[in-house]
Amino acid sequence: MAQPVDFFFFYGSLYTYIAVMRIDAAAKAAGVSVRWRPFNLRAIMIEQNNVPARNPVKMRYVWRDIERRCQAYGLPFRAGPPYPVDPELRVNRVGTVAAVEGWCPEFSRAVYTAWMRDHQAPHEHLERTLRDLGKDPLAVLVQADDDVTKAQLESETNAARDLGIFGAPTFAVGSEIFWGGDRLDEALAYAKGR
Amino acid sequence: MAQPVDFFFFYGSLYTYIAVMRIDAAAKAAGVSVRWRPFNLRAIMIEQNNVPARNPVKMRYVWRDIERRCQAYGLPFRAGPPYPVDPELRVNRVGTVAAVEGWCPEFSRAVYTAWMRDHQAPHEHLERTLRDLGKDPLAVLVQADDDVTKAQLESETNAARDLGIFGAPTFAVGSEIFWGGDRLDEALAYAKGR
Repeated sequence: MAQPVDFFFFYGSLYTYIAVMRIDAAAKAAGVSVRWRPFNLRAIMIEQNNVPARNPVKMRYVWRDIERRCQAYGLPFRAGPPYPVDPELRVNRVGTVAAVEGWCPEFSRAVYTAWMRDHQAPHEHLERTLRDLGKDPLAVLVQADDDVTKAQLESETNAARDLGIFGAPTFAVGSEIFWGGDRLDEALAYAKGR
Repeated sequence: MAQPVDFFFFYGSLYTYIAVMRIDAAAKAAGVSVRWRPFNLRAIMIEQNNVPARNPVKMRYVWRDIERRCQAYGLPFRAGPPYPVDPELRVNRVGTVAAVEGWCPEFSRAVYTAWMRDHQAPHEHLERTLRDLGKDPLAVLVQADDDVTKAQLESETNAARDLGIFGAPTFAVGSEIFWGGDRLDEALAYAKGR
Protein backbone atom coordinates (compact mmCIF):
# COMPACT_ATOMS: atom_id res chain seq x y z
CA MET A 1 0.00 0.00 0.00
CA ALA A 2 1.20 3.49 -0.87
CA GLN A 3 2.48 5.76 1.88
CA PRO A 4 1.00 9.25 2.16
CA VAL A 5 2.89 12.28 0.90
CA ASP A 6 3.32 15.20 3.28
CA PHE A 7 3.10 18.40 1.27
CA PHE A 8 5.06 21.07 3.13
CA PHE A 9 4.53 24.54 1.75
CA PHE A 10 4.39 28.22 2.59
CA TYR A 11 1.96 30.90 1.44
CA GLY A 12 4.52 33.30 0.07
CA SER A 13 6.62 30.78 -1.82
CA LEU A 14 6.28 31.37 -5.54
CA TYR A 15 6.97 27.87 -6.82
CA THR A 16 4.40 26.56 -4.36
CA TYR A 17 1.76 27.91 -6.75
CA ILE A 18 2.44 25.20 -9.30
CA ALA A 19 2.49 22.42 -6.69
CA VAL A 20 -0.74 23.67 -5.11
CA MET A 21 -2.46 23.50 -8.46
CA ARG A 22 -1.01 20.15 -9.54
CA ILE A 23 -0.66 17.94 -6.49
CA ASP A 24 -4.19 16.66 -5.90
CA ALA A 25 -4.74 15.48 -9.47
CA ALA A 26 -1.25 13.98 -9.70
CA ALA A 27 -1.60 12.21 -6.36
CA LYS A 28 -5.03 10.89 -7.24
CA ALA A 29 -3.70 9.49 -10.51
CA ALA A 30 -0.90 7.81 -8.56
CA GLY A 31 -3.24 6.47 -5.88
CA VAL A 32 -1.39 8.38 -3.16
CA SER A 33 -2.97 10.45 -0.38
CA VAL A 34 -1.70 13.93 0.43
CA ARG A 35 -1.47 15.75 3.74
CA TRP A 36 -1.37 19.52 3.27
CA ARG A 37 1.04 20.98 5.81
CA PRO A 38 1.66 24.73 5.74
CA PHE A 39 4.71 25.76 7.78
CA ASN A 40 6.68 28.91 8.45
CA LEU A 41 9.37 28.68 5.80
CA ARG A 42 10.33 32.30 6.34
CA ALA A 43 11.57 31.53 9.85
CA ILE A 44 13.65 28.60 8.60
CA MET A 45 15.16 30.55 5.71
CA ILE A 46 16.16 33.38 8.01
CA GLU A 47 17.70 30.90 10.46
CA GLN A 48 19.74 29.43 7.61
CA ASN A 49 20.60 32.74 5.93
CA ASN A 50 19.03 31.28 2.80
CA VAL A 51 16.87 34.04 1.36
CA PRO A 52 16.71 33.91 -2.44
CA ALA A 53 14.41 36.93 -2.45
CA ARG A 54 17.43 39.03 -1.54
CA ASN A 55 19.13 38.08 -4.82
CA PRO A 56 17.64 40.13 -7.66
CA VAL A 57 19.50 38.15 -10.31
CA LYS A 58 18.01 34.89 -9.10
CA MET A 59 14.56 36.40 -8.65
CA ARG A 60 14.54 37.63 -12.24
CA TYR A 61 15.13 34.05 -13.33
CA VAL A 62 12.56 32.61 -10.92
CA TRP A 63 9.77 34.77 -12.32
CA ARG A 64 10.65 33.83 -15.89
CA ASP A 65 10.89 30.15 -14.98
CA ILE A 66 7.51 30.23 -13.27
CA GLU A 67 5.99 31.88 -16.31
CA ARG A 68 7.39 29.14 -18.55
CA ARG A 69 6.18 26.37 -16.23
CA CYS A 70 2.70 27.84 -16.00
CA GLN A 71 2.58 27.83 -19.78
CA ALA A 72 3.69 24.21 -19.84
CA TYR A 73 1.08 23.15 -17.27
CA GLY A 74 -1.72 25.35 -18.58
CA LEU A 75 -1.91 27.38 -15.36
CA PRO A 76 -3.00 31.02 -15.36
CA PHE A 77 -0.19 33.52 -14.77
CA ARG A 78 0.25 37.20 -15.49
CA ALA A 79 3.73 38.68 -15.07
CA GLY A 80 4.23 40.95 -12.08
CA PRO A 81 2.33 39.60 -9.05
CA PRO A 82 3.01 41.47 -5.79
CA TYR A 83 5.95 40.09 -3.83
CA PRO A 84 6.73 39.46 -1.01
CA VAL A 85 3.37 38.88 0.66
CA ASP A 86 1.83 37.90 4.00
CA PRO A 87 4.14 39.95 6.23
CA GLU A 88 2.21 39.02 9.38
CA LEU A 89 1.82 35.32 8.45
CA ARG A 90 -1.95 35.63 8.72
CA VAL A 91 -2.55 33.80 5.44
CA ASN A 92 -0.34 31.02 6.72
CA ARG A 93 -2.32 30.85 9.94
CA VAL A 94 -5.62 30.68 8.03
CA GLY A 95 -4.02 27.89 5.98
CA THR A 96 -3.18 26.16 9.24
CA VAL A 97 -6.82 26.34 10.32
CA ALA A 98 -7.87 25.09 6.90
CA ALA A 99 -5.45 22.16 7.14
CA VAL A 100 -6.87 21.14 10.50
CA GLU A 101 -10.43 21.45 9.24
CA GLY A 102 -9.90 19.83 5.85
CA TRP A 103 -10.45 22.71 3.42
CA CYS A 104 -6.80 23.54 2.77
CA PRO A 105 -6.66 22.46 -0.90
CA GLU A 106 -9.49 24.72 -2.08
CA PHE A 107 -8.31 27.61 0.11
CA SER A 108 -4.78 27.31 -1.27
CA ARG A 109 -5.88 27.14 -4.88
CA ALA A 110 -8.09 30.20 -4.41
CA VAL A 111 -5.30 32.17 -2.72
CA TYR A 112 -2.69 31.33 -5.35
CA THR A 113 -4.90 31.82 -8.38
CA ALA A 114 -5.98 35.27 -7.20
CA TRP A 115 -2.35 36.13 -6.48
CA MET A 116 -0.71 34.85 -9.66
CA ARG A 117 -3.49 35.55 -12.15
CA ASP A 118 -5.15 38.63 -10.67
CA HIS A 119 -2.25 40.15 -8.70
CA GLN A 120 -4.20 40.11 -5.44
CA ALA A 121 -1.80 39.98 -2.50
CA PRO A 122 -3.15 37.12 -0.38
CA HIS A 123 -3.07 38.96 2.95
CA GLU A 124 -5.06 41.85 1.51
CA HIS A 125 -7.91 39.68 0.26
CA LEU A 126 -8.41 37.13 3.02
CA GLU A 127 -11.97 38.08 3.87
CA ARG A 128 -13.21 37.86 0.31
CA THR A 129 -11.35 34.62 -0.29
CA LEU A 130 -12.97 33.08 2.78
CA ARG A 131 -16.41 34.36 1.88
CA ASP A 132 -16.10 32.92 -1.63
CA LEU A 133 -15.37 29.55 -0.03
CA GLY A 134 -18.53 29.76 2.03
CA LYS A 135 -16.72 30.45 5.29
CA ASP A 136 -17.53 33.04 7.94
CA PRO A 137 -14.51 35.34 7.52
CA LEU A 138 -14.65 36.86 10.98
CA ALA A 139 -14.90 33.52 12.75
CA VAL A 140 -12.02 32.07 10.76
CA LEU A 141 -9.80 35.10 11.30
CA VAL A 142 -10.42 35.04 15.05
CA GLN A 143 -9.43 31.39 15.06
CA ALA A 144 -6.38 32.07 12.88
CA ASP A 145 -5.16 34.66 15.35
CA ASP A 146 -5.59 32.58 18.49
CA ASP A 147 -2.79 30.87 20.39
CA VAL A 148 -3.82 27.35 19.44
CA THR A 149 -3.37 28.11 15.75
CA LYS A 150 -0.05 29.87 16.35
CA ALA A 151 1.17 26.84 18.28
CA GLN A 152 -0.02 24.55 15.50
CA LEU A 153 1.89 26.49 12.86
CA GLU A 154 4.98 26.47 15.05
CA SER A 155 4.62 22.73 15.58
CA GLU A 156 4.46 22.14 11.83
CA THR A 157 7.49 24.38 11.36
CA ASN A 158 9.36 22.27 13.90
CA ALA A 159 8.34 19.12 12.04
CA ALA A 160 9.66 20.61 8.80
CA ARG A 161 12.91 21.64 10.47
CA ASP A 162 13.35 18.17 11.95
CA LEU A 163 12.98 16.64 8.50
CA GLY A 164 15.78 18.86 7.14
CA ILE A 165 13.47 21.01 5.05
CA PHE A 166 14.94 24.31 3.80
CA GLY A 167 12.59 25.35 0.98
CA ALA A 168 9.12 24.96 -0.48
CA PRO A 169 7.41 23.11 -1.83
CA THR A 170 8.90 20.01 -0.23
CA PHE A 171 7.29 16.59 -0.43
CA ALA A 172 8.07 14.17 2.39
CA VAL A 173 7.48 10.44 2.40
CA GLY A 174 8.35 9.37 5.91
CA SER A 175 11.81 10.85 6.42
CA GLU A 176 12.66 11.00 2.70
CA ILE A 177 12.32 14.54 1.38
CA PHE A 178 11.98 15.87 -2.15
CA TRP A 179 12.52 19.59 -2.64
CA GLY A 180 10.89 21.56 -5.42
CA GLY A 181 7.89 21.09 -7.66
CA ASP A 182 10.16 19.30 -10.11
CA ARG A 183 10.31 16.39 -7.67
CA LEU A 184 6.56 15.86 -7.29
CA ASP A 185 6.37 12.89 -9.62
CA GLU A 186 9.48 11.35 -8.05
CA ALA A 187 7.98 11.76 -4.58
CA LEU A 188 4.74 10.12 -5.67
CA ALA A 189 6.64 7.22 -7.21
CA TYR A 190 8.61 6.84 -3.99
CA ALA A 191 5.38 6.87 -1.96
CA LYS A 192 4.04 4.04 -4.10
CA GLY A 193 7.12 2.00 -3.33
CA ARG A 194 8.31 2.26 -6.94
CA MET B 1 17.25 24.94 -37.76
CA ALA B 2 17.99 24.36 -34.09
CA GLN B 3 19.95 26.96 -32.15
CA PRO B 4 22.99 25.81 -30.18
CA VAL B 5 22.83 25.38 -26.43
CA ASP B 6 25.49 27.10 -24.34
CA PHE B 7 26.34 24.83 -21.44
CA PHE B 8 27.60 27.03 -18.59
CA PHE B 9 29.15 25.06 -15.75
CA PHE B 10 31.76 25.10 -13.03
CA TYR B 11 34.15 22.37 -11.93
CA GLY B 12 33.17 22.32 -8.28
CA SER B 13 29.40 22.36 -8.79
CA LEU B 14 27.93 19.03 -7.68
CA TYR B 15 24.86 18.93 -9.88
CA THR B 16 27.07 19.70 -12.88
CA TYR B 17 28.18 16.06 -12.69
CA ILE B 18 24.85 14.79 -13.98
CA ALA B 19 24.68 17.37 -16.76
CA VAL B 20 28.26 16.67 -17.84
CA MET B 21 27.43 12.99 -18.19
CA ARG B 22 24.07 13.45 -19.91
CA ILE B 23 24.25 16.48 -22.17
CA ASP B 24 26.07 15.19 -25.23
CA ALA B 25 23.82 12.16 -25.73
CA ALA B 26 20.66 14.16 -25.01
CA ALA B 27 21.69 16.97 -27.36
CA LYS B 28 22.62 14.54 -30.10
CA ALA B 29 19.24 12.83 -29.81
CA ALA B 30 17.60 16.25 -30.09
CA GLY B 31 19.74 17.34 -33.02
CA VAL B 32 21.13 20.28 -31.05
CA SER B 33 24.78 21.32 -30.81
CA VAL B 34 26.38 22.16 -27.47
CA ARG B 35 29.05 24.70 -26.59
CA TRP B 36 30.84 23.77 -23.36
CA ARG B 37 31.54 26.97 -21.43
CA PRO B 38 33.21 26.67 -18.03
CA PHE B 39 32.99 29.87 -15.98
CA ASN B 40 33.87 31.04 -12.49
CA LEU B 41 30.62 30.43 -10.65
CA ARG B 42 32.34 30.84 -7.32
CA ALA B 43 33.03 34.50 -8.04
CA ILE B 44 29.40 35.12 -9.02
CA MET B 45 27.99 33.31 -5.99
CA ILE B 46 30.18 35.31 -3.64
CA GLU B 47 29.15 38.55 -5.37
CA GLN B 48 25.51 37.61 -4.84
CA ASN B 49 25.92 36.19 -1.31
CA ASN B 50 24.38 33.00 -2.67
CA VAL B 51 26.54 30.20 -1.28
CA PRO B 52 24.50 27.02 -0.66
CA ALA B 53 27.63 25.24 0.57
CA ARG B 54 27.42 27.35 3.71
CA ASN B 55 24.04 25.79 4.57
CA PRO B 56 24.58 22.30 6.05
CA VAL B 57 20.86 21.51 6.01
CA LYS B 58 20.63 22.18 2.29
CA MET B 59 23.88 20.37 1.55
CA ARG B 60 22.65 17.22 3.30
CA TYR B 61 19.69 17.25 0.96
CA VAL B 62 21.79 17.99 -2.12
CA TRP B 63 23.99 14.95 -1.57
CA ARG B 64 20.99 12.68 -1.10
CA ASP B 65 19.25 14.14 -4.14
CA ILE B 66 22.36 13.62 -6.28
CA GLU B 67 22.58 10.03 -5.11
CA ARG B 68 18.96 9.42 -6.10
CA ARG B 69 19.42 11.08 -9.49
CA CYS B 70 22.55 9.09 -10.24
CA GLN B 71 20.58 5.93 -9.50
CA ALA B 72 17.82 7.09 -11.81
CA TYR B 73 20.24 7.87 -14.65
CA GLY B 74 22.55 4.90 -14.08
CA LEU B 75 25.53 7.10 -13.24
CA PRO B 76 28.25 5.92 -10.87
CA PHE B 77 28.22 7.57 -7.46
CA ARG B 78 29.59 6.66 -4.06
CA ALA B 79 28.48 8.73 -1.07
CA GLY B 80 31.06 11.07 0.42
CA PRO B 81 33.12 12.69 -2.37
CA PRO B 82 35.51 15.42 -1.20
CA TYR B 83 33.96 18.88 -1.16
CA PRO B 84 34.64 21.71 -1.85
CA VAL B 85 37.31 21.27 -4.50
CA ASP B 86 39.54 23.29 -6.86
CA PRO B 87 40.45 26.09 -4.42
CA GLU B 88 42.85 27.71 -6.90
CA LEU B 89 40.50 27.30 -9.91
CA ARG B 90 43.18 25.36 -11.76
CA VAL B 91 40.76 22.64 -12.87
CA ASN B 92 38.51 25.36 -14.21
CA ARG B 93 41.41 26.88 -16.12
CA VAL B 94 42.35 23.52 -17.61
CA GLY B 95 38.70 23.17 -18.59
CA THR B 96 38.95 26.57 -20.23
CA VAL B 97 41.92 25.39 -22.29
CA ALA B 98 40.02 22.22 -23.14
CA ALA B 99 36.99 24.22 -24.25
CA VAL B 100 39.12 26.33 -26.59
CA GLU B 101 40.86 23.25 -27.99
CA GLY B 102 37.78 21.05 -28.28
CA TRP B 103 38.40 18.32 -25.70
CA CYS B 104 36.26 19.71 -22.91
CA PRO B 105 33.57 16.96 -22.94
CA GLU B 106 35.99 14.08 -22.37
CA PHE B 107 38.03 16.05 -19.86
CA SER B 108 34.92 16.96 -17.89
CA ARG B 109 33.54 13.43 -17.85
CA ALA B 110 36.90 12.10 -16.66
CA VAL B 111 37.18 14.73 -13.91
CA TYR B 112 33.66 14.19 -12.61
CA THR B 113 33.67 10.41 -12.75
CA ALA B 114 36.92 10.21 -10.79
CA TRP B 115 35.52 12.70 -8.29
CA MET B 116 32.05 11.23 -7.76
CA ARG B 117 32.85 7.54 -8.15
CA ASP B 118 36.42 7.33 -6.86
CA HIS B 119 36.50 10.32 -4.50
CA GLN B 120 39.46 11.88 -6.27
CA ALA B 121 39.47 15.64 -5.71
CA PRO B 122 39.86 17.07 -9.23
CA HIS B 123 42.63 19.53 -8.42
CA GLU B 124 44.74 16.79 -6.82
CA HIS B 125 44.63 14.52 -9.86
CA LEU B 126 44.99 16.88 -12.80
CA GLU B 127 48.23 15.43 -14.15
CA ARG B 128 46.97 11.85 -14.22
CA THR B 129 43.65 12.92 -15.73
CA LEU B 130 45.46 14.76 -18.51
CA ARG B 131 47.86 11.89 -19.13
CA ASP B 132 44.95 9.44 -19.39
CA LEU B 133 43.46 11.68 -22.08
CA GLY B 134 46.70 11.55 -24.07
CA LYS B 135 47.71 15.12 -23.22
CA ASP B 136 51.10 16.41 -22.13
CA PRO B 137 50.25 17.40 -18.54
CA LEU B 138 53.07 19.89 -18.11
CA ALA B 139 52.30 21.72 -21.35
CA VAL B 140 48.61 21.94 -20.55
CA LEU B 141 49.20 23.15 -17.01
CA VAL B 142 51.59 25.87 -18.19
CA GLN B 143 48.93 26.99 -20.63
CA ALA B 144 46.21 26.82 -17.95
CA ASP B 145 48.23 29.12 -15.73
CA ASP B 146 49.04 31.75 -18.34
CA ASP B 147 47.36 35.13 -18.61
CA VAL B 148 45.52 34.31 -21.83
CA THR B 149 43.66 31.47 -20.16
CA LYS B 150 42.89 33.54 -17.07
CA ALA B 151 41.47 36.26 -19.28
CA GLN B 152 39.43 33.69 -21.20
CA LEU B 153 37.89 32.31 -18.01
CA GLU B 154 37.12 35.81 -16.84
CA SER B 155 35.54 36.65 -20.17
CA GLU B 156 33.29 33.59 -19.93
CA THR B 157 32.38 34.57 -16.37
CA ASN B 158 31.40 38.01 -17.62
CA ALA B 159 29.27 36.42 -20.34
CA ALA B 160 27.52 34.30 -17.71
CA ARG B 161 26.96 37.30 -15.47
CA ASP B 162 25.56 39.30 -18.38
CA LEU B 163 23.05 36.53 -19.06
CA GLY B 164 21.82 36.64 -15.47
CA ILE B 165 23.35 33.31 -14.49
CA PHE B 166 23.59 32.59 -10.75
CA GLY B 167 24.13 28.81 -10.58
CA ALA B 168 25.32 25.76 -12.46
CA PRO B 169 24.60 23.97 -14.59
CA THR B 170 22.80 26.61 -16.65
CA PHE B 171 21.78 26.08 -20.27
CA ALA B 172 21.45 29.20 -22.41
CA VAL B 173 19.73 29.45 -25.76
CA GLY B 174 20.47 32.96 -26.92
CA SER B 175 19.41 35.10 -23.96
CA GLU B 176 16.97 32.52 -22.56
CA ILE B 177 18.47 30.68 -19.59
CA PHE B 178 17.51 27.41 -17.93
CA TRP B 179 18.99 26.72 -14.51
CA GLY B 180 19.61 23.24 -13.20
CA GLY B 181 20.02 19.82 -14.71
CA ASP B 182 16.26 19.38 -14.42
CA ARG B 183 15.86 21.90 -17.21
CA LEU B 184 18.12 20.20 -19.77
CA ASP B 185 15.31 18.67 -21.79
CA GLU B 186 13.34 21.92 -21.68
CA ALA B 187 16.39 23.84 -22.91
CA LEU B 188 16.92 21.39 -25.76
CA ALA B 189 13.26 21.67 -26.75
CA TYR B 190 13.55 25.45 -26.70
CA ALA B 191 16.68 25.29 -28.87
CA LYS B 192 14.78 23.24 -31.44
CA GLY B 193 12.11 25.92 -31.57
CA ARG B 194 9.57 23.60 -29.91
